[in-house]
Amino acid sequence: MSKNLTTRAEDYSKWYNELVVKADLAENSGVRGCMVIKPYGYAIWEKMQAELDRMFKETGHQNAYFPLFVPKSMFEAEEKNAEGFAKECAIVTHYRLKNDPDKPGKLMVDPNAKLEEELIVRPTSEAIIWSTYKGWVQSYRDLPLLINQWANVVRWEMRTRLFLRTAEFLWQEGHTAHATRKEAIEESEQMMHVYADFAENFMAIPVIKGLKTETERFAGADETYCIEALMQDGKALQAGTSHFLGQNFAKAFDVKFANAEGKQEYVWGTSWGVSTRLMGALVMTHSDDKGLVLPPNLAPIQVVVVPIYKTDEQLETITAVVKQLVSEFKKQRVTIKFDDRTTQKPGFKFAEWELKGVPVRIAVGPKDIENGTFEVARRDTLTKEVVSKDEIVTYTTDLLAQIQKELFDNALNYRNTHITEVNSFEEFKSVLDGKGGFVSAHWDGTAATEEKIKELTKATIRCIPLDRVEQAGSCVLTGAASVGRVLFAKAY
Amino acid sequence: MSKNLTTRAEDYSKWYNELVVKADLAENSGVRGCMVIKPYGYAIWEKMQAELDRMFKETGHQNAYFPLFVPKSMFEAEEKNAEGFAKECAIVTHYRLKNDPDKPGKLMVDPNAKLEEELIVRPTSEAIIWSTYKGWVQSYRDLPLLINQWANVVRWEMRTRLFLRTAEFLWQEGHTAHATRKEAIEESEQMMHVYADFAENFMAIPVIKGLKTETERFAGADETYCIEALMQDGKALQAGTSHFLGQNFAKAFDVKFANAEGKQEYVWGTSWGVSTRLMGALVMTHSDDKGLVLPPNLAPIQVVVVPIYKTDEQLETITAVVKQLVSEFKKQRVTIKFDDRTTQKPGFKFAEWELKGVPVRIAVGPKDIENGTFEVARRDTLTKEVVSKDEIVTYTTDLLAQIQKELFDNALNYRNTHITEVNSFEEFKSVLDGKGGFVSAHWDGTAATEEKIKELTKATIRCIPLDRVEQAGSCVLTGAASVGRVLFAKAY
Repeated sequence: MSKNLTTRAEDYSKWYNELVVKADLAENSGVRGCMVIKPYGYAIWEKMQAELDRMFKETGHQNAYFPLFVPKSMFEAEEKNAEGFAKECAIVTHYRLKNDPDKPGKLMVDPNAKLEEELIVRPTSEAIIWSTYKGWVQSYRDLPLLINQWANVVRWEMRTRLFLRTAEFLWQEGHTAHATRKEAIEESEQMMHVYADFAENFMAIPVIKGLKTETERFAGADETYCIEALMQDGKALQAGTSHFLGQNFAKAFDVKFANAEGKQEYVWGTSWGVSTRLMGALVMTHSDDKGLVLPPNLAPIQVVVVPIYKTDEQLETITAVVKQLVSEFKKQRVTIKFDDRTTQKPGFKFAEWELKGVPVRIAVGPKDIENGTFEVARRDTLTKEVVSKDEIVTYTTDLLAQIQKELFDNALNYRNTHITEVNSFEEFKSVLDGKGGFVSAHWDGTAATEEKIKELTKATIRCIPLDRVEQAGSCVLTGAASVGRVLFAKAY
Repeated sequence: MSKNLTTRAEDYSKWYNELVVKADLAENSGVRGCMVIKPYGYAIWEKMQAELDRMFKETGHQNAYFPLFVPKSMFEAEEKNAEGFAKECAIVTHYRLKNDPDKPGKLMVDPNAKLEEELIVRPTSEAIIWSTYKGWVQSYRDLPLLINQWANVVRWEMRTRLFLRTAEFLWQEGHTAHATRKEAIEESEQMMHVYADFAENFMAIPVIKGLKTETERFAGADETYCIEALMQDGKALQAGTSHFLGQNFAKAFDVKFANAEGKQEYVWGTSWGVSTRLMGALVMTHSDDKGLVLPPNLAPIQVVVVPIYKTDEQLETITAVVKQLVSEFKKQRVTIKFDDRTTQKPGFKFAEWELKGVPVRIAVGPKDIENGTFEVARRDTLTKEVVSKDEIVTYTTDLLAQIQKELFDNALNYRNTHITEVNSFEEFKSVLDGKGGFVSAHWDGTAATEEKIKELTKATIRCIPLDRVEQAGSCVLTGAASVGRVLFAKAY
């Protein structure tokens, strides 16, 4: 099964595309650019959702739901935002089909059912949400509004890739409104930290926190905070963004409040989101040439048990032992599956669960039953241990925690050895063409230089790291003055 | 606050519309026919989702996600289904906006960005899902497919009402594929029972299980099972449907499998769904002229504590007592809120929580502190008890269970006294114009009679109850032969 997977060294991009499909995460649909998220992939997304949702609620947010459609006049109210998304949006113009008089059994758009005003399928929901907030906010007592929405959005991308860039994707989008600038900035920073915490401690993906440059900023934001991850091919992936919107949307939608002194002021806003793109980051951070490698926190199946037997009698004995094991694991809240299919051989099963990234595999045969042991295999390191019956539960739960930690440590180690400080444009290019990763370089702060570097190298400024040291230098391209290094990379 | 609510006797429909908005469940948006589900309403929906999702998984189903859009050619593949939804669907025809040259700052649909094939925003997902299943099913080993999706769908209804009928709504849709007719029928029946169980035991809404007549059947189904509830105004509400699709979609999308003998056969299908419409059923089953009445299982806040005090010192003493109470309730997994707002008086708070349907209110003042008591008020009966500190937790958890049960019993009693057997069309009309509810009558089995009765009375056949007794009779309208009674009602 996995022997058919293209290796990363052969063709990283092909490896990714194949793996997503073969591991049953997702597939392309009959609708251009839209994917089907298959049950195994969706189960991982559900685990992400549950944890993020918990974190959002813990920080005081509530969920709500806003319309899928945005009338054109509402869409264009915040000009920068509209401009940013106008070129890639799906537009509903009609509301009825009718029988096609020329083609029996076929339907056609009914020209008499044209909408008075076109509806944009939301590419993001600031417009519809701020138009609603206008009715919700009168006084400072109504603030802050701390709201999140789980939804589908559509961006009509021309070149799509499963999870990484699809016309429709699933995400959450937080939209908050505050009485003061300071509070809104704190909220956007807080959510960036929540995302980083989630990426690192739950997904085992190390991230760099930073600010986007003006060029890379969200359309309609005053500031975009982001978390940037590094994939195994040396390309960066933006894993989440949190925007400080200033009063831009409040002004566009006339959302004012009476402050404690009774004076009318515009509300301050934030928005923040992560999407099914995280599934792509997950695959590309940990997986290998044999298939997926899933961190235990996100694995729909954490432990799979494969029986090794020749006779029905052996299977019966093994089954009795495994059933008890399964119930003990369940008590420890470990998700365990007993793969007792009689239609497949153990070798097939091993390959299948490797491909699907199940963190721990336990094999048990007649010899193990005799010896009171199990064979425990780690998916990430592909190593095996023989473990006694008495120790198996503790051993495995400890092992799951260890795998979670080591996946992060390994990814962190890879990431850290792929941040290279350069001081000349020659060096800049040679690192990008060589080992890749983040290139830490001085930049003169202009959009023109940023654009020129992108043209020459395909690298963009991923972020101005929050923890960067202010340090005078000269721009790696122009030699002009710089106040500190920024991180460049080729990116997804 | 609640004094402004129209009473049910004055105008039931207006009472409903006002209540949904005033209780912060939902509101109309700036998009025709689409609603905003507000945080309080969404919290109730989340509780429904969690429980249904648990029940689906317990019966072996997995979640997945399929595209929002259905290309026109795919949409029209199953003719009956297409015909059923063609008249009310939103259609995407373009994928880009551009600056309007005649109106600075405004956007227009870019005529150069017309889609080659129009996309229908899913009104239901049979078409897109069965086109996908074609790739998933080769052999009987791939069956059954037991899949559910949580999604938004769009039906371009001309007359909309919050929750009951909106252009966009949220729902779940199960789509399963089976090797045999028998298995598919069993699945559709099972899901009807799951829905009934959920409605009765979780939402406290009694339902009648039955089959739809051909006229009322889902477009593309061979049989539609349903659960029907009765609202306080004597109108019925379809609360969930489960369809046996026969091989209709398998044939339309050419989904075949090799059976155990290697012979190619078409797959058998089911689909089943419940939607945010259930929120409407919830409101209209239990609520009263003072506002919402929520069953404890669905209440985002089960218990609210309101302090009664004059001095800051009193509030401090009360707060200390309440904090301990709150932590004891949390241990019992009771959702409790301490309403310690200093900006509002107790009377205002009482009215607000009554309006929002919190099942139990605990009031505590200086006298209670002295006496070691609390005043416990039930939202449903509006009765109060004084309960001692030692007993408060047990008393309240028992009370919550009792409220849950009594809400169901009361609704059941109302429903049972509103099923009237009639034997003449005069009686039929007089019951409908009088107390309303379900009218149990003989029907000759023809669509023509069904249609005629609808014309004359606005009543439709809600279902052929599963538990009906076969019994010869004569049709209430035509006098023609009938094999048993069916249930008519005016319906939402």
